[in-house]
Amino acid sequence: MQFTAHDISLLLNGTVEGDPSATVSQLAKIEEAGAGSLSFLANPKYEQFLYTTNASIVIVNNDQQLTEPVKATLIRVENAYSAFTVLLDKYNTFRLDKKGIEQPSFIHPTAQVGAGVYIGAFAYIGQNASIGDNCKIYPNVNVGDNATLGNNVTLFAGATVYFDCVIGNNVIVHSGAVIGSDGFGFAPNPDGTYTKIAQIGNVILEDDVEVGSNTTIDRATMGSTTVRKGAKIDNLIQIAHNVEIGAHTVIAAQSGISGSTKIGERVVIGGQVGFAGHLNIANGSQFSAQTGINGSITEEGKAWGGSPYMPYKDYLRAHAKLRKLPELDRKVYELEKLIEELRKGKVSE
Amino acid sequence: MQFTAHDISLLLNGTVEGDPSATVSQLAKIEEAGAGSLSFLANPKYEQFLYTTNASIVIVNNDQQLTEPVKATLIRVENAYSAFTVLLDKYNTFRLDKKGIEQPSFIHPTAQVGAGVYIGAFAYIGQNASIGDNCKIYPNVNVGDNATLGNNVTLFAGATVYFDCVIGNNVIVHSGAVIGSDGFGFAPNPDGTYTKIAQIGNVILEDDVEVGSNTTIDRATMGSTTVRKGAKIDNLIQIAHNVEIGAHTVIAAQSGISGSTKIGERVVIGGQVGFAGHLNIANGSQFSAQTGINGSITEEGKAWGGSPYMPYKDYLRAHAKLRKLPELDRKVYELEKLIEELRKGKVSE
Amino acid sequence: MQFTAHDISLLLNGTVEGDPSATVSQLAKIEEAGAGSLSFLANPKYEQFLYTTNASIVIVNNDQQLTEPVKATLIRVENAYSAFTVLLDKYNTFRLDKKGIEQPSFIHPTAQVGAGVYIGAFAYIGQNASIGDNCKIYPNVNVGDNATLGNNVTLFAGATVYFDCVIGNNVIVHSGAVIGSDGFGFAPNPDGTYTKIAQIGNVILEDDVEVGSNTTIDRATMGSTTVRKGAKIDNLIQIAHNVEIGAHTVIAAQSGISGSTKIGERVVIGGQVGFAGHLNIANGSQFSAQTGINGSITEEGKAWGGSPYMPYKDYLRAHAKLRKLPELDRKVYELEKLIEELRKGKVSE
Repeated sequence: MQFTAHDISLLLNGTVEGDPSATVSQLAKIEEAGAGSLSFLANPKYEQFLYTTNASIVIVNNDQQLTEPVKATLIRVENAYSAFTVLLDKYNTFRLDKKGIEQPSFIHPTAQVGAGVYIGAFAYIGQNASIGDNCKIYPNVNVGDNATLGNNVTLFAGATVYFDCVIGNNVIVHSGAVIGSDGFGFAPNPDGTYTKIAQIGNVILEDDVEVGSNTTIDRATMGSTTVRKGAKIDNLIQIAHNVEIGAHTVIAAQSGISGSTKIGERVVIGGQVGFAGHLNIANGSQFSAQTGINGSITEEGKAWGGSPYMPYKDYLRAHAKLRKLPELDRKVYELEKLIEELRKGKVSE
Repeated sequence: MQFTAHDISLLLNGTVEGDPSATVSQLAKIEEAGAGSLSFLANPKYEQFLYTTNASIVIVNNDQQLTEPVKATLIRVENAYSAFTVLLDKYNTFRLDKKGIEQPSFIHPTAQVGAGVYIGAFAYIGQNASIGDNCKIYPNVNVGDNATLGNNVTLFAGATVYFDCVIGNNVIVHSGAVIGSDGFGFAPNPDGTYTKIAQIGNVILEDDVEVGSNTTIDRATMGSTTVRKGAKIDNLIQIAHNVEIGAHTVIAAQSGISGSTKIGERVVIGGQVGFAGHLNIANGSQFSAQTGINGSITEEGKAWGGSPYMPYKDYLRAHAKLRKLPELDRKVYELEKLIEELRKGKVSE
Repeated sequence: MQFTAHDISLLLNGTVEGDPSATVSQLAKIEEAGAGSLSFLANPKYEQFLYTTNASIVIVNNDQQLTEPVKATLIRVENAYSAFTVLLDKYNTFRLDKKGIEQPSFIHPTAQVGAGVYIGAFAYIGQNASIGDNCKIYPNVNVGDNATLGNNVTLFAGATVYFDCVIGNNVIVHSGAVIGSDGFGFAPNPDGTYTKIAQIGNVILEDDVEVGSNTTIDRATMGSTTVRKGAKIDNLIQIAHNVEIGAHTVIAAQSGISGSTKIGERVVIGGQVGFAGHLNIANGSQFSAQTGINGSITEEGKAWGGSPYMPYKDYLRAHAKLRKLPELDRKVYELEKLIEELRKGKVSE
């Protein structure tokens, strides 16, 4: 599939500078691009590559100044970075445009399947499950009994949605993610053994949620574990039973949220962060990587770090001093000696 | 499926207060319950909901006092919470009562399959594998060659049991969990490369073990990695080769146990905890979330925290002071100045 | 399958001491071995077991002295441990020597499949995918469109390789690992929502790489996320988009590497370690478990610990003092009082 600079300029509403018939068949970074590649320049610190790149076409900002000759055809647009992400997206949409039902797959006779779907081989659609229009269900995916998917949902190979779970529109779930496994609920018995508490709730993923590969989201004991609209959940994350993740919250890989904790909207959580259970976390909170949070946070929009957590600035200051703690310890020891001398001096006076 | 208050009172050995023909078809929390729901009240701090709930039936303790009129039919029992968990369990058992073998599935001709099993589509049962009675093998599950499962084992969709592994009775393994992958064993070579050490042992899960979704339990180099009776292992946990987890030990999500470490019985391990290899951890030890343990623990029943680990109380005290370390540092600086002045004063005297 | 001491001595170029017709059918640790087992003694601290073991054959070092009578037949070799690992490997190669294509499996008509392969039931090989000679593709594995595998690659049950990814020779990927899921890339919008940035790159695993179970390696935004020759990646590890892992680097379970970070060669990374994004980590660096690295490291071969990271020795010293911080705090408080007294004393003079 080839495109000319002219085609692309029409798509992006840009202006061509150079050969409008220059053709490209792939996208690449400006520093790595070869002939036939389309690239972009947005960050001024990469400007030097504009003059050395082998890319056939480069998208630049309208106000990009040229200080040397450029081999590539340029397309000038309002915002080069955002124009390029539009192309990335179109490229991907084109490449991933699978349709049809591969065999063998398993679609229970009572399941409902929308129009324009892709269902890969060895995918399993359970009893009374419902799949919306234009969904892409890759091979070896499991959709449990009574689970419902909105429109335009993508479940990549090997993702699992347990029975009764509800997935909104435009949701993406990556391979190996598990939606709706049992919450970790056990009642301790007097003899030191545990009795399992049946987990009869479900998981709800609202519209535009993305869930990374091998992330696990447990079903509620009763009611729902809920991920609100537009939240983005990276890989290998644990979301326990009855948790609620607020709209447009972003969680980086390997973080964990314990049971019944409620994370607010537009919260930003770094990697390997852990939250204890039954907490309330205010909207707009930010957590640096490896933070451990064992209390609720009521003030919105603050940054936190450390385990246990503290305000991010305190964390930076305290840990800078932590490394010098042996030195501080030595100073105190010397002060003790000096004071002892001073006191002896006094006494001996 | 509908039940009357009368039916339920017989099941729970309780007494009806109100309309014995009140019917319910689902279970819900008292604060969220609608008409047709059954709920319970055990925690006195939720008592207000008893007077406002829309639940049709509420299970309460025998000694529950009423201070306002109640719309719902009540069923009085010895212990409302425990009676309700009995109902949760019955509800779930009924809902998950799958039987039969879906097609296409793969059962090797040499495999043995017990009575009353469910085997989902795209499940794979290897050569000489053995599946006990009443097992539930969900779709896309893998049971490797020579693996054996006891009776009443549930492997949820996409779980994997490698060859030779042994699973006891009543074990539950959630989706994506991997039982028996190779231990991480490599011999370093003088040139900086590594040679893989074949891992020929297996994994044994004893009776009543539960393993969470996407947890990984590696096979032993030789011998067995063992999870003892009744241990409960949450999601995304790493259990390395030759580890032993004691009976009725509970491990929360994202914790990791390094090779050959032996965790005692009735140990309680929080989330994101890490153990180094070749340790012995005493029975009844407790670890708070994110603890890092790099030494053996011989005293039973103690609580630990911090990374590296220390007694939990020390951890709390030390970390309370850590945040104030910059302040302490400043104090010492000021003391140094004061002493310098005092000493100069002395000298100048 | 049975072997005599004579057979094994020929294989290992060793000398038999005792009955050359002693036969074994399995491998076991010297302290656990029963009749019919072959074991080894390399570590002098286990010597006592040589005199009590029930193993039928024990491999020992040429220079092993005997201080008591030995029941087992001995095979003397240059290096008992390394000779035994050779046997472990042969044993495993024999056991895992699967060949042939099980049905039902899905191999796209345009896919290329080499000679001598095993393809398990419910495995999926996508459009234009390419599988080299002697590959073992276990059941329920996914190989996406245009993905290419070299020779002698093993993908265990339920592993997933997304479209376009490239896997070298002799690579092993364990169950549930996900190679090539989307990088976590979202552009924030002024209204607090996020727009997904299409991830059009791929993942390259070079020759001799091993990837543990349920590990996730994300595809690059553009270009490649690369794991260089001989690197060994344990279970439940997160490798983000555009990361590069150097040759013969070893990473223990549950560690995470954020986007665009470049880890050098022969780096050793403990469990639950986290790296921030866009870092450069020097060759031969070593990180103890739970380290948090938020800056680049330019000096080669150094050891690090702590979160945030510091030189390992500083980390040990600082944390030893951390536990005693409350004591230090008290000392400073007492010094303040003493100095106050001294100053008052001076003033009152």
